[in-house]
Amino acid sequence: MINVAIVGFGYWGPNLVRNFSSIPDVQVKKVVDLREERLKVVAQNYPNTEVSTNIDDLWTDTSIDAVVIATPVFTHFPLAKKALLAGKHVLLEKPMTDTVDHALELIELSQKLGKVLMVDHTFLYTPAVQKMKDLITSGQVGKVKYFDSTRINLGLIQQDVNVLWDLAPHDISILDYLVNDEPVSVNATGVSHIHNGVENIAYLTVNYSSNILAHFNCSWSSPVKIRMMLVGGDEKMIVFNDMEPTEKIRVYDTAHSVSSDEDRRRVLVDYRVGDVYIPKLGSAEALSGMARDFIAAVTTGSTPIASWKSGLNTIRILEASQKSIKSGGVEIKIQNV
Amino acid sequence: MINVAIVGFGYWGPNLVRNFSSIPDVQVKKVVDLREERLKVVAQNYPNTEVSTNIDDLWTDTSIDAVVIATPVFTHFPLAKKALLAGKHVLLEKPMTDTVDHALELIELSQKLGKVLMVDHTFLYTPAVQKMKDLITSGQVGKVKYFDSTRINLGLIQQDVNVLWDLAPHDISILDYLVNDEPVSVNATGVSHIHNGVENIAYLTVNYSSNILAHFNCSWSSPVKIRMMLVGGDEKMIVFNDMEPTEKIRVYDTAHSVSSDEDRRRVLVDYRVGDVYIPKLGSAEALSGMARDFIAAVTTGSTPIASWKSGLNTIRILEASQKSIKSGGVEIKIQNV
Amino acid sequence: MINVAIVGFGYWGPNLVRNFSSIPDVQVKKVVDLREERLKVVAQNYPNTEVSTNIDDLWTDTSIDAVVIATPVFTHFPLAKKALLAGKHVLLEKPMTDTVDHALELIELSQKLGKVLMVDHTFLYTPAVQKMKDLITSGQVGKVKYFDSTRINLGLIQQDVNVLWDLAPHDISILDYLVNDEPVSVNATGVSHIHNGVENIAYLTVNYSSNILAHFNCSWSSPVKIRMMLVGGDEKMIVFNDMEPTEKIRVYDTAHSVSSDEDRRRVLVDYRVGDVYIPKLGSAEALSGMARDFIAAVTTGSTPIASWKSGLNTIRILEASQKSIKSGGVEIKIQNV
Amino acid sequence: MINVAIVGFGYWGPNLVRNFSSIPDVQVKKVVDLREERLKVVAQNYPNTEVSTNIDDLWTDTSIDAVVIATPVFTHFPLAKKALLAGKHVLLEKPMTDTVDHALELIELSQKLGKVLMVDHTFLYTPAVQKMKDLITSGQVGKVKYFDSTRINLGLIQQDVNVLWDLAPHDISILDYLVNDEPVSVNATGVSHIHNGVENIAYLTVNYSSNILAHFNCSWSSPVKIRMMLVGGDEKMIVFNDMEPTEKIRVYDTAHSVSSDEDRRRVLVDYRVGDVYIPKLGSAEALSGMARDFIAAVTTGSTPIASWKSGLNTIRILEASQKSIKSGGVEIKIQNV
Repeated sequence: MINVAIVGFGYWGPNLVRNFSSIPDVQVKKVVDLREERLKVVAQNYPNTEVSTNIDDLWTDTSIDAVVIATPVFTHFPLAKKALLAGKHVLLEKPMTDTVDHALELIELSQKLGKVLMVDHTFLYTPAVQKMKDLITSGQVGKVKYFDSTRINLGLIQQDVNVLWDLAPHDISILDYLVNDEPVSVNATGVSHIHNGVENIAYLTVNYSSNILAHFNCSWSSPVKIRMMLVGGDEKMIVFNDMEPTEKIRVYDTAHSVSSDEDRRRVLVDYRVGDVYIPKLGSAEALSGMARDFIAAVTTGSTPIASWKSGLNTIRILEASQKSIKSGGVEIKIQNV
Repeated sequence: MINVAIVGFGYWGPNLVRNFSSIPDVQVKKVVDLREERLKVVAQNYPNTEVSTNIDDLWTDTSIDAVVIATPVFTHFPLAKKALLAGKHVLLEKPMTDTVDHALELIELSQKLGKVLMVDHTFLYTPAVQKMKDLITSGQVGKVKYFDSTRINLGLIQQDVNVLWDLAPHDISILDYLVNDEPVSVNATGVSHIHNGVENIAYLTVNYSSNILAHFNCSWSSPVKIRMMLVGGDEKMIVFNDMEPTEKIRVYDTAHSVSSDEDRRRVLVDYRVGDVYIPKLGSAEALSGMARDFIAAVTTGSTPIASWKSGLNTIRILEASQKSIKSGGVEIKIQNV
Repeated sequence: MINVAIVGFGYWGPNLVRNFSSIPDVQVKKVVDLREERLKVVAQNYPNTEVSTNIDDLWTDTSIDAVVIATPVFTHFPLAKKALLAGKHVLLEKPMTDTVDHALELIELSQKLGKVLMVDHTFLYTPAVQKMKDLITSGQVGKVKYFDSTRINLGLIQQDVNVLWDLAPHDISILDYLVNDEPVSVNATGVSHIHNGVENIAYLTVNYSSNILAHFNCSWSSPVKIRMMLVGGDEKMIVFNDMEPTEKIRVYDTAHSVSSDEDRRRVLVDYRVGDVYIPKLGSAEALSGMARDFIAAVTTGSTPIASWKSGLNTIRILEASQKSIKSGGVEIKIQNV
Repeated sequence: MINVAIVGFGYWGPNLVRNFSSIPDVQVKKVVDLREERLKVVAQNYPNTEVSTNIDDLWTDTSIDAVVIATPVFTHFPLAKKALLAGKHVLLEKPMTDTVDHALELIELSQKLGKVLMVDHTFLYTPAVQKMKDLITSGQVGKVKYFDSTRINLGLIQQDVNVLWDLAPHDISILDYLVNDEPVSVNATGVSHIHNGVENIAYLTVNYSSNILAHFNCSWSSPVKIRMMLVGGDEKMIVFNDMEPTEKIRVYDTAHSVSSDEDRRRVLVDYRVGDVYIPKLGSAEALSGMARDFIAAVTTGSTPIASWKSGLNTIRILEASQKSIKSGGVEIKIQNV
């Protein structure tokens, strides 16, 4: 039996409790939150789960094997550090930490202590991303050449982090998962229409060592919700439209040759050049896959898909993007680790 | 009767001849092209139009009132200069010239000589752009805060200019038309997957004096054709999807307030916040409107929609974008004029 | 406090229990089902609800005020009759009964005994149907002239009823709700690709006294799910596409005049003639609205939207359609009541 | 050289002249129309084509090899008869004739005289229909089980024929081309919202000898244009959406098995069961293919795709549908021939 504690019972908390509870031989032993009224919700629905407003109880409770930290970003580092030092495995909500240095310190600590350190990049476990991974790994897509992501909607302005820290971790971690390539530098620009100066619209480009150009368009200010990702390869292009209820992944033939004037005219006029294929996706709940991957890492020592490496690579790009925005969009090298 | 000569009878030439020919009291007197086989096409379809491979005939032909220049970009300046000096009104294909200095020299010359100088930004005359202009001018959209354009498709690699010079003039001139604002600086990044180093994918952001952030995503390497523009205002957002056969313009309610937790949850889950309105657009051919606007400027001295100012503002941004790409995405101030 | 019993805990049962439980001053006192394993599910989730496999307990349990019958269609009549005779208010799942005569007998009984008799036409309580009702009642749509519904998908073959009895009640009851008109006759055709001869594809047209023509296309054999309804009026046409996640209702301008040849050409070429308006819909759960409407009828004597009249009109059309199919599509007069 | 005469220069006439003119060794020798102003249009654009208002000139002009008849339906029979008797090959616009008897008389005559008799079912030559034919012929679709077509839009009320005679020939001829099956009987219903009693909305079902059920939904009164066809087979379903600019044909996996309760739930919830494949279609102009097919039949004796058989089968169904509408939707046997 693995006993899990969950710290923070906000928007995402109920989903975490529900999914961890449904894994055989796993128990959600305790939920910690500063807000009494949130703990009442837990007590009502999960009578066997203890609740507490005092997080320090956790570190001394030796029955707890693993801690899931679902609190604001700036608290991730101190809480995860205490949890690791108390001998717990740690799962952090995204983004992993607020700085690369904090991420590195946690990684080093987890390795020294032999504890799992993982980040909840839930999207990596969606049937759509798994299908994209298959298409790329199997060679059907060919060599990936560019990546273009748009994630815009009417969001809630966050006081502490800008729109890139809020929305881009999803897309950056997906790209990191799909391609085995090293980010070299970033450029980012943004604008704030808010009093506190936090960017609500921002654009990020990432240059990779193999000449992939990745671009991320993030906004909290669009009344239309767009969740679209293009992955361009030599042979195929994948379009991932997450707003589509049933046709999230479309695969387009890319390969083409233009030899005559007639070809030229046709290419200019045509909407697309080849066949389209829309695979049927499974219906597994991503969060369930993530929770099980964490438990597997705890019990068998396996390397999870959303490993600390995935978390770290994401933070490296976000930290550099912030420097770039503050320096007027200048190219910022990614910190080597 | 206004006599028009057309220089260059490539992809766009037949459309120009057809549209100018259909204006009352306008005659396409001459077509000049270096390629004999292209002139044969003219002769076959327009028996009353003279053809020539020698452009210098034009300057001494006093029967020609106006010259339309539809040749490669780098020839725009020398040809337009000769035409103006020969006393002709000039219409240039987009982009206006290859440098801001060339544009400024032509503008000064045209003003000194009292001749029309105009740029064929055809898109400004489409029913969709006219409708957007109406929506903004009438105040329905409120204060414009951002602009986001995606223009990607499988394009033909051009040898002389990169993808921004090829595709972005459409979108930049539309934005320039829609808002009366001054561009201050740009950031641009791009990548070349081609041997000659010309960028086939590029991203451009433009900062305006009133804090509008404009973003342009241009690519020749997408097997899917996307032509989408978002114009975000205080009150409404316009989405212009040019691939839609009949619903090109959609207007979304923007205004919203989030006061409760329930509101918060709903905003996060909902796809949109308000009603959508899809106006019926007219079916006028844009190129016909452009041609008539040019002829009106020639005959009545009116200021055309696609004036030299529109052309110049576009070149100012393109020139700065090129500097930014070459300097690793650094912010480049727009040249004051 | 109103005590409700639910008979039948199959696919729909859990939704009924959840929604009735959440109404203030209403208690789901008992659930009856023949299958022990279904009752275990109730016991686990609703410890305060009694369970029983013996339906006859219900009739003598004077604490039960109202009975919800969610069993196969052919059992509706005998169970509802017993419930009414035992002094209970009755809510029947759709379709109300298997014959018009059975429906009439229940109605007469309920009126004699002063008990509520209502049918769960859940769709009438959806925000989309409510919006259509508003648009028609307010006069915006003008006089309704036709109604066309397509409800096809890959369904499960039912052994006892054909595809019209299974799927069309939704659409028939919506039409009955939207227009105050009397059905006069029906024609129906169908085909069975199944061994037992039950129609899996069927088409139904209903002629109304005011010259409305209504058409229903129902199929269990389409791998693509289509849920589309057109309501054509003098002034506007409504398209209700229930597969659209966020744009279920679209309102099209209808009014038009064709006077010139140019008009004629345009009408033939154009996709549509006027503006389109997509209202934002509320997000209320339809079943909750239905449950509250039943309880209001029980406690205040109000007439519910999904009254016995709605149920009866639906059965009248279904019964006639069956006769028409069996008679080779001949026109069958609707039984007067 | 084949000399062609075209009778009737209305909406479709210019397309016929243009396409026949562009075939090598074919000349449009003469155009006949009663309206002088229409003939002026011909003279202006085709100086080498003779024009006449007197159709009787045609029968004695021995230089004419073939006659294309594009006049109102009720004139098809007398004109085609005269043309055949004058020794001309004949191409008729759709629908072939106004009655089955007229069609049979023309067919007999053409066979006796050894002349081509063909009907312009242009749609059969579209890349979309050709692709559907390939998919069915190659066995990918499996055994076809149903066919469902919707062809509705805001049409011009025709004075002489109802909406089925106007719109359904497209779909009936497509179905006739796709499946080698014999229509057995029809049911049809319709409504007229027009003073002259001609049906503007009508529904037609056709029963085939192999148990295929075909259904046709035709309307002139929908402000939204829908052109959708479903072809359901054992293995695949084809959806042909002619309003889609670039994805006209979609192929859905059909085969499925439902064995568990979980399967059952999934089938009810899922939008579709398998992969979707969207083939890239060619861009050939259908009318050009039709014209060439007619000329090939004239010069080589080949059997065209849109043969008299295709025309006859369409009329047989239309004539029966009219009887059914007039008899209140009763099943009408198709006239054997």
